[in-house]
Amino acid sequence: MNVTELLSKYAVETRFEDLPDEVVHEAKRAVVNLLAVAIGGCNHKSVDIVLEFAGEIGGKPVSSVWGRKEKTDPLFAALVNGISSHVLDFDCNHLEIGMHPSAPVLPAVFALSEQLGSKGKELLLSFVIGFEVECQIGRGVTPSHMYKWHITSTLGHFGSAAAAGKLLKLDAGQMAQALGLAGTQASGFKEMFGTMSKSFHPGKASMNGLLAANLIKKGFTSSKQVIEAEKGFAKNASDEQHFDKMISGLGKKYNLLEISYKPYACGVLAHPIIDGMIRLRDKHAVQAKEVESIHCRTNPLVLNHMGIKDPQTGLESKFSAYHSVAVALIDGTAGEAQYSDDKANDATIRELRNKTIIEVNPEVRRDEAFLEIELAGGQVLQEHVLHALGSNKNPLSDADLSKKFRELTYPLLGERKADRLLDHIWNIDLLEDITEIIEDIRP
Amino acid sequence: MNVTELLSKYAVETRFEDLPDEVVHEAKRAVVNLLAVAIGGCNHKSVDIVLEFAGEIGGKPVSSVWGRKEKTDPLFAALVNGISSHVLDFDCNHLEIGMHPSAPVLPAVFALSEQLGSKGKELLLSFVIGFEVECQIGRGVTPSHMYKWHITSTLGHFGSAAAAGKLLKLDAGQMAQALGLAGTQASGFKEMFGTMSKSFHPGKASMNGLLAANLIKKGFTSSKQVIEAEKGFAKNASDEQHFDKMISGLGKKYNLLEISYKPYACGVLAHPIIDGMIRLRDKHAVQAKEVESIHCRTNPLVLNHMGIKDPQTGLESKFSAYHSVAVALIDGTAGEAQYSDDKANDATIRELRNKTIIEVNPEVRRDEAFLEIELAGGQVLQEHVLHALGSNKNPLSDADLSKKFRELTYPLLGERKADRLLDHIWNIDLLEDITEIIEDIRP
Repeated sequence: MNVTELLSKYAVETRFEDLPDEVVHEAKRAVVNLLAVAIGGCNHKSVDIVLEFAGEIGGKPVSSVWGRKEKTDPLFAALVNGISSHVLDFDCNHLEIGMHPSAPVLPAVFALSEQLGSKGKELLLSFVIGFEVECQIGRGVTPSHMYKWHITSTLGHFGSAAAAGKLLKLDAGQMAQALGLAGTQASGFKEMFGTMSKSFHPGKASMNGLLAANLIKKGFTSSKQVIEAEKGFAKNASDEQHFDKMISGLGKKYNLLEISYKPYACGVLAHPIIDGMIRLRDKHAVQAKEVESIHCRTNPLVLNHMGIKDPQTGLESKFSAYHSVAVALIDGTAGEAQYSDDKANDATIRELRNKTIIEVNPEVRRDEAFLEIELAGGQVLQEHVLHALGSNKNPLSDADLSKKFRELTYPLLGERKADRLLDHIWNIDLLEDITEIIEDIRP
Repeated sequence: MNVTELLSKYAVETRFEDLPDEVVHEAKRAVVNLLAVAIGGCNHKSVDIVLEFAGEIGGKPVSSVWGRKEKTDPLFAALVNGISSHVLDFDCNHLEIGMHPSAPVLPAVFALSEQLGSKGKELLLSFVIGFEVECQIGRGVTPSHMYKWHITSTLGHFGSAAAAGKLLKLDAGQMAQALGLAGTQASGFKEMFGTMSKSFHPGKASMNGLLAANLIKKGFTSSKQVIEAEKGFAKNASDEQHFDKMISGLGKKYNLLEISYKPYACGVLAHPIIDGMIRLRDKHAVQAKEVESIHCRTNPLVLNHMGIKDPQTGLESKFSAYHSVAVALIDGTAGEAQYSDDKANDATIRELRNKTIIEVNPEVRRDEAFLEIELAGGQVLQEHVLHALGSNKNPLSDADLSKKFRELTYPLLGERKADRLLDHIWNIDLLEDITEIIEDIRP
């Protein structure tokens, strides 16, 4: 099946007018959320390091670094903004595909839009295209692929290239080759979780896809069937390939409408547990010291992604369902502050982590959890979370997203710039030139 | 088994004085050969395209582009020099591992040495380290890995990072993380063969490894067990993993001493056939028009790597054993001129390709071939090539390599510069500062 050709044709032929209103609106919500978390994470050490290196070897300062004073070249802008997008582990999520689809796409889209002076509609359209292309491919390789590979990294290469190729107005043959050149750079191992290399992944995917689209535009050549080829992406990097799923519903059923935004600053699979813990705490005024044991029944992916039992650093604690249980019960929330190095090494939290048992069951959905707390006196408290806050069935509202945006960006941009930027994003389809809002992305 | 840690320790602890003389000499031979083929390929369209893009987005001009006037930043220098190193498919080869080990390593080594002003000995040592590290990893994943992945690309990431890390004087913990950050970028599909994306692979590997080592030097973090981890390189990208082979003989048995240099400008697996065809032509004055059929018995990898039956472009013809048979018989040689677009579409060559049958047999070694030509009159000519010219058992001499260097570089650098550069490379271990020879690498 000529999947690469069909996805390329879709990417090239789709116009802004073809996008349903609800898709345009969801795209804005995704931009609000991603800029919020990226600006919130923009001063992370990993971003400092890459920017220091970029500064040393040069690159024309044409693309903005979100939340910071620096500009750099479009490739490095895609890299660092991709890192900051994911470093708090607070970006949007497609639960079924198991991917963070915006983080590898939007940095390339913004870097290139700023370079080209694109219209707001072009920015939104290219984002939607990149998003849909990567998610469609994802449907054909999950779940096998994501057990071993960081799917946000591998698929992000295709998303970034498709989006950048759309902004560069590639024809269908070029688009297929841009996917080829991006795909043959696609990597990213799950082994990297808990180190800076994890958030490096979507940044590098964004950078690589942007490079691919630019080179193909100039006449570089690549395969036109990278996805389905016998020695191409799906066969090499996945134990299963469902090529029919990759093109099913294309342009009709939008993956974008199925994403969720995180209310909590850790891996999304722990969110149902956190919801439940906060509810139990609030209902019963549970104190950590009276807890005998905690029992969680969850989807098996929770331990696959979030299985670190005794995290040593803040970064590791973001991949610990045990830590998430503990902070939710103790602090009643699970924001950025709950995943610091100090919290990871806090004695009370550690004790509670050790009292937590996570049992997995494939019949429990990914946005669901069953919780039990046994108290010292023998009393047992129970809670069933049907759909976690922020999941597709229990979504954050526009107002929630605006609130999240303000909380994360005010400290970096100041209130006035942040509010103006937020207002511009909710109306981004009206912008004649994206560079109009760029000054507000930096302090 | 802690393979990543052991390889890192080896990379960090090995000193120039530890290298046997024959290894130092072979390293120089490898540099002579790689610079020759890279300078010979430096004006390929793929190099033009990448340099045009690099020029547009900037980057400080601190590292030389081999054979051309431009300088660019170290990352782009590694990328374009890696492309030109491989674009003629004329670079050195480790037949058993199935890899071109120098192409992804030396571009990063030169780009960084020029930036740092390293000594000639440091350049050679870091090259040997990168070469050995990538080849040792290769021993543990071949042949499964290379059937699907372009092993020069995937392993090249490790080689480039190890070499760059050595020049940057990383400690063992940093070196392990540099391998981690490089490894998690490692990709490259066999599907790309026959397009510009193939030679892009070693360039990108070189660039990615160089980026990884630089970021780790500055404090970026990564996994310290990327090679052996359950969701790391070997388990994700290979159906077999022999971790013992990855460390066996380390620092004692040098992979570098097992490489071969190509006398012919196409995939090395066709070289035994070409040798045999040239011999038959010379012995029997065979004319193309009197050939009824050609029968070759070869190692199975010949069709895996060189199986294109009817190539449409010069680039495709480099991956056609059929084309190689035809040009060797008609022209009596197989240099760059025999793999042009014109030759690919030549009627006489095409006719001869169609008369060629390639039978594979795993008992035929990779540097061996059995050939039969049936002439119109019924006469059958036979030839057995025991070890192809340029293979490890029948190597090119230093004089052969110098001749190859002159042939490929005179047109680009001029005789005086080319001769001076060649002389410097044969004595590169005496150079106090590598920048002394850099002016001669450019016209």
